[in-house]
Amino acid sequence: MLPGVGVFGMGSTARVLVPLLKAEGFEVHALWGQSEEEACCLAKELGIPFHTSRSDDVLLHQDVDLVCIYIPPSMTRQIAVKALGIGKNVVCEKAATAVDLFKMVTAARYYPQLLSIMGNTLRFLPAFVAMRQLLLEGYVGELQVCDVRVYGPSLLDESYGWTCEELMGGGGLHTVGSAIIDLLSYLTGARAHRVHGLLRTFVQQNNLIRGIRRVTSDDFCFFQMLMGGTGSSSGGVCCTVTLNFNMPGSFVQEVMVVGSTGRLVARGTELYGQRNGSKGEELLLDDSGWVGPEVKDMPLPQLRGLSSMVKALRQSFQAHEERRSWARGPVAMAPTFEDGLYVQTVVEAVKRSSCSGEWECVEIMSQEPDPNHNLCEALQRNKN
Amino acid sequence: MLPGVGVFGMGSTARVLVPLLKAEGFEVHALWGQSEEEACCLAKELGIPFHTSRSDDVLLHQDVDLVCIYIPPSMTRQIAVKALGIGKNVVCEKAATAVDLFKMVTAARYYPQLLSIMGNTLRFLPAFVAMRQLLLEGYVGELQVCDVRVYGPSLLDESYGWTCEELMGGGGLHTVGSAIIDLLSYLTGARAHRVHGLLRTFVQQNNLIRGIRRVTSDDFCFFQMLMGGTGSSSGGVCCTVTLNFNMPGSFVQEVMVVGSTGRLVARGTELYGQRNGSKGEELLLDDSGWVGPEVKDMPLPQLRGLSSMVKALRQSFQAHEERRSWARGPVAMAPTFEDGLYVQTVVEAVKRSSCSGEWECVEIMSQEPDPNHNLCEALQRNKN
Repeated sequence: MLPGVGVFGMGSTARVLVPLLKAEGFEVHALWGQSEEEACCLAKELGIPFHTSRSDDVLLHQDVDLVCIYIPPSMTRQIAVKALGIGKNVVCEKAATAVDLFKMVTAARYYPQLLSIMGNTLRFLPAFVAMRQLLLEGYVGELQVCDVRVYGPSLLDESYGWTCEELMGGGGLHTVGSAIIDLLSYLTGARAHRVHGLLRTFVQQNNLIRGIRRVTSDDFCFFQMLMGGTGSSSGGVCCTVTLNFNMPGSFVQEVMVVGSTGRLVARGTELYGQRNGSKGEELLLDDSGWVGPEVKDMPLPQLRGLSSMVKALRQSFQAHEERRSWARGPVAMAPTFEDGLYVQTVVEAVKRSSCSGEWECVEIMSQEPDPNHNLCEALQRNKN
Repeated sequence: MLPGVGVFGMGSTARVLVPLLKAEGFEVHALWGQSEEEACCLAKELGIPFHTSRSDDVLLHQDVDLVCIYIPPSMTRQIAVKALGIGKNVVCEKAATAVDLFKMVTAARYYPQLLSIMGNTLRFLPAFVAMRQLLLEGYVGELQVCDVRVYGPSLLDESYGWTCEELMGGGGLHTVGSAIIDLLSYLTGARAHRVHGLLRTFVQQNNLIRGIRRVTSDDFCFFQMLMGGTGSSSGGVCCTVTLNFNMPGSFVQEVMVVGSTGRLVARGTELYGQRNGSKGEELLLDDSGWVGPEVKDMPLPQLRGLSSMVKALRQSFQAHEERRSWARGPVAMAPTFEDGLYVQTVVEAVKRSSCSGEWECVEIMSQEPDPNHNLCEALQRNKN
């Protein structure tokens, strides 16, 4: 039986998510928004019976068994941890810091019977499911290089807010790069152990953000990850990622993996491959048959992935009679909070590298840092 | 009046160059090859009256006024410097080291009335001539990012030789990357002051190179260059370059420049552009009208650029009555030996960065290093 859903979010993702949930048969009982008016307005638009600006009203809502959290990163941890504590299943987007993620991991470990996944949807895109399968089957031989680029228009909101602020989880690396970091570990089955990166904010002010306000989040980011086998510098897969969000009017997402005997390329939602020795590329997965909503603000791969994730959620919950029970199988490929912690750790290592100019090690937090130490660091950072 | 030409070279470039020279009205009088047999064979094939394996026979040939040097990098310096000393005009490909280039620069400065250019032909490709012009006219606004990728099949020769050997000038960075480094300084009008890079040799042995022999030259290379204004780390143009020569059956060359108000992309020999606010890309230069030889081993942009360079040489020499005199105008855009020294300095800085893992400064040599010091370094290097 499908669980009742509560949605946290006001942005374009929430606007897309609710219709997708409904199409799969989920009932969305409650919506949370940052202000009463916004929540009211969106609830009316999406046909949700209950809305609020107080998070507890959704978390404690008796018909809500699954909570979907698509809100600014700095608010995610608090809601996600509380939802698990109250006994609700959780799907959420990225949090703002590795410390946040660490707290979420701790909560998820404490309630292993509850579903807790990162709503990072690229893994669910059929092109990447197929790519991973072909990699496992040896289509490209020994994997050497992953080369990813994402180009698109500005990620900034129309008014000043968290998207402008690096420390609040804004910027291309945190918003889009984290989905790519997760995807590459899913595809390669390995994790980055060293990273190097360069971040830039080319557009620091625009028509809407001016005066004393300045954008601090990156609109251009370029990083490399060395995956797998630690130690030897010659072994392992090299991943290179280029993100550029100074390209209005376009959205390009290309993920290429190159190995000793061939290569695979996902362009948008389609998958192409070429084995060494063959004349040209073959189309391996044509996604043109997909029928779904068209959404202005969301690139097709994200939209298509979100749709597949909602389908997987339906299958997972459908398998059981009890509303809150779910089967692991259909969502086994989803990123866990542990995966989220890994991704955030890489994001922070890339940022460190951009400051230091050096390769930085990716070391996953294994215990919560002293909060006073953190405070000192934050103060230190603001001084610079 | 057009000068008589002597060609040094056995490879595919020489094989393409000679017909292009003849088509423009140059007479090729002499050919040098590494062995008497090879030289004889190729001279017959290309219809060149004189061949030799002794370099002086070409350099001192009375009908030779222009020497084209397309031989392994480690041999270039010696021939180029000698040719200038004998009073011949010189077009040559890259040398093996910055020290070589420094000696060539010294010779070129000593004989300023002689033509001395690097046969790096991408600058001459009409797509890049147009791209540079549009950049100057402000098509993209303030330039932010250059993003280049070149993918292709292995650069290794069929038998073991200099192409396998990093110290002999083999590898993607030295062979192809150097042309890109030159191109980017031509396009941006700036030079790299800091670089970071990563080189890999994924294929160290193959069917033909095995046993105790190992490839040391890179087949994958990835580097970043910070251009222009030194000092401030936030200003200036970021260039990112990805070279991958583990992709048999394909050749992709894409050069993209992104600025504050638009972008330009050269794909192969065609130029596209998009201004911010417009719906899609416009084709700015369609190169499909070009008629020229088709050559299996040489990618179209290189071939097309080589052809344009030969045309420019013809115009340069045609302007004067005297066989050895030339006009600066038509070849003013060609890279000088100074440009060659800059390019080689960047190549070596990228290699250093790949070893050190750190950003390396690009410091152009201003006096010849002590040869004994060099020897020590080479010994040191071999130990590692």
